[in-house]
Amino acid sequence: MRDFLPADKARRERVLAVIRERYRAHGFDEIETPVVEEYARLHAGIGGDNEKLAYNVLKRGLDADAIRAAAEAPADLTDLGLRYDLTVPLARFYASNRGQLPTVFRSIQMAPVWRAERPQKGRYRQFVQCDIDVIGDASARAEAELVIATLDTVDALGLEGGTIRINDRRALDFMLDSFGFDPSERPGVLITIDKLDKIGPEGVAAELRERGATASAVDAFEAFLRRPMTMEYNPYGERQIRKVLPDGAPDDVVAHLVGIGEAVLAARGASSPIGDVPLVFDPFLVRGMGYYTGTIFELAHPSVDYSLGGGGRYDGMIGRFLGQEVPAVGFSIGFERIVDLVEGLEDADARSVVLVHDRDVPVPELIAHKAALVGAGARVRLEQRTKNLKALLERSAADGYTEFATVAPGDAELEFKALD
Amino acid sequence: MRDFLPADKARRERVLAVIRERYRAHGFDEIETPVVEEYARLHAGIGGDNEKLAYNVLKRGLDADAIRAAAEAPADLTDLGLRYDLTVPLARFYASNRGQLPTVFRSIQMAPVWRAERPQKGRYRQFVQCDIDVIGDASARAEAELVIATLDTVDALGLEGGTIRINDRRALDFMLDSFGFDPSERPGVLITIDKLDKIGPEGVAAELRERGATASAVDAFEAFLRRPMTMEYNPYGERQIRKVLPDGAPDDVVAHLVGIGEAVLAARGASSPIGDVPLVFDPFLVRGMGYYTGTIFELAHPSVDYSLGGGGRYDGMIGRFLGQEVPAVGFSIGFERIVDLVEGLEDADARSVVLVHDRDVPVPELIAHKAALVGAGARVRLEQRTKNLKALLERSAADGYTEFATVAPGDAELEFKALD
Repeated sequence: MRDFLPADKARRERVLAVIRERYRAHGFDEIETPVVEEYARLHAGIGGDNEKLAYNVLKRGLDADAIRAAAEAPADLTDLGLRYDLTVPLARFYASNRGQLPTVFRSIQMAPVWRAERPQKGRYRQFVQCDIDVIGDASARAEAELVIATLDTVDALGLEGGTIRINDRRALDFMLDSFGFDPSERPGVLITIDKLDKIGPEGVAAELRERGATASAVDAFEAFLRRPMTMEYNPYGERQIRKVLPDGAPDDVVAHLVGIGEAVLAARGASSPIGDVPLVFDPFLVRGMGYYTGTIFELAHPSVDYSLGGGGRYDGMIGRFLGQEVPAVGFSIGFERIVDLVEGLEDADARSVVLVHDRDVPVPELIAHKAALVGAGARVRLEQRTKNLKALLERSAADGYTEFATVAPGDAELEFKALD
Repeated sequence: MRDFLPADKARRERVLAVIRERYRAHGFDEIETPVVEEYARLHAGIGGDNEKLAYNVLKRGLDADAIRAAAEAPADLTDLGLRYDLTVPLARFYASNRGQLPTVFRSIQMAPVWRAERPQKGRYRQFVQCDIDVIGDASARAEAELVIATLDTVDALGLEGGTIRINDRRALDFMLDSFGFDPSERPGVLITIDKLDKIGPEGVAAELRERGATASAVDAFEAFLRRPMTMEYNPYGERQIRKVLPDGAPDDVVAHLVGIGEAVLAARGASSPIGDVPLVFDPFLVRGMGYYTGTIFELAHPSVDYSLGGGGRYDGMIGRFLGQEVPAVGFSIGFERIVDLVEGLEDADARSVVLVHDRDVPVPELIAHKAALVGAGARVRLEQRTKNLKALLERSAADGYTEFATVAPGDAELEFKALD
């Protein structure tokens, strides 16, 4: 877990402000849930591997007997936990507040989550996720709104050139069935397929054989992998999608994929918020979470070799909390991955001034100078002059200040000079 | 702990944005610390009663033996806790990062804290605090900058007319000594004095007698309480401050109080960010926290009978973490108390449109309409027409949308009407 110093914090807040503003423009509304959720809800089997990484909160007021009694059942020591994602809390939020929300609810969540991961480079135990979700819309319109809002936001952050890869869990299931894998083999096979980018077709086939997967199915799959792996949605149509799937792909799945592409393409135009539509159908895209039931997406960017975000459809989850099925689909931007890539988001401060004063300037004089500038719309920092004035000015410039003036006792008018 | 629905969340974010912008204008810089701090640090005796209210995080990987061994020492079950204030984390942050911070560091923290309070009206277990602190400046300039920034911010939120009451812990100690209380009686006597506004001079005297406080001291105090209790700083001067303290108040304490007033007054002027200076010296202001060593303040507003914020000087705390004394003073706005009072902070969205569409409008047509409007700078929500159109439009207006258009299949041009 990290401290954020002023320059980092300001940068993070600026990026969050852009994301919030763009998501709102696309009709999404921000909500907030408590950092802490009930233990039972966080450990209902929805969160997958993340459940094991949850930080749990010790019950208050436990006595010695209660602690001893929990020795063989440590879960009895805890009643709350820190959320490990924003999806489980959203499902609970929707179930709790449905009556006060629009029929189709488009949510924004920009908030930290916690996972007790082993420390490693680029992994944090507290990190911010930026999620948008559409709840209550089973049509491809929901996916299209998510994709367009995400691409527009990434563009607004100066990260043009991103690509969204799309697949459908049902297409994956169909594909595995058609090769002859048993449905019980799916989870393991998908874990291996997820490594395709890293280990290639030969590596995937080898690992599947090592796993002891049905041999004839692995052979069929390996042959299939020698075909072209991805296709551009543009030029776009049902024919192209069917071409990269085994024969006989289910009509409803293909139609849904076609619908997403048509809708996203429709956003192009003279005043469109997105430019070229960088959608790619990738029949081998997997996404880790077990709760996905349909569309899955991933955001890639040419500047990095990891994904910048992803998401998918999880039509079954809300029903777990609400007792009634409600379709839902979401897209999560990996904020920590994106924030380091963003450059040149300028501070909106109109004028920022450092007043470098001698030690003997009376405090009321300093305050009067500062107040007059702040009252006129500037951002102002007081700094007592140090021996190394150059270093002081350099640090002020690094902190985002653009002008300075020196202040001696009795000065009526100050002379401002540019910093840097 | 609460969920925040879209209207509430948007209002909270707008208030936070105003506070952040104003504090930044006054030369403060925002930082962020992890939500979770080490258990030992949170329970070092600095946090006062709040330490008992901390949520503690269960250690990961405890086995049955470790749990049994902790039966008589529950603290062994935990290594981390949720912060219960922003001051202890700030002191730790400063000690960790001092080399990268300006000599005088002016911090902003706007973040949630957690306390396991019994549920009661207006008290939350997760709530946001907005703190500004000046670290490294022992002079009255620090208090003046805090007071001016706070008053300017409260004004910017439309809560003009606030008053800041000021006292000094050293003046309180001097006063109690001068009446003849034993120094060991101070904490208990201060708890009773803190109730002066509620129970009045007679109530305070009665409670002190009930506590068994030194009888002659209580008599002297009761006589003193019949004198005027507060004074306006304006007209302002040493004479007026000494008038409401027992004779012989320490010169350095009086000079510091005078210095704050003079500096705050100096901020007045044609282009001043603050108007009349509503500072009041209140020799009976106590503030609960034990770590205060000098100035203490409290923000009052005529619209409510509770304080909207407060703070004080805590010159001893940083030294606990750094091993070197560093002066520090802070002011905390009670965000949860303020956010409900703020009215009329308008959403900055230029144009916000609801597109009410028939069920049979093809998704690409809907997306094209929406994208054209978003691309032109509007905020846009799609809504499928329901039987009760009036209710749909009313809810859209309540959600902050100002225009709507209906969309039928094949519509090329849309006709926009005002909502509400």
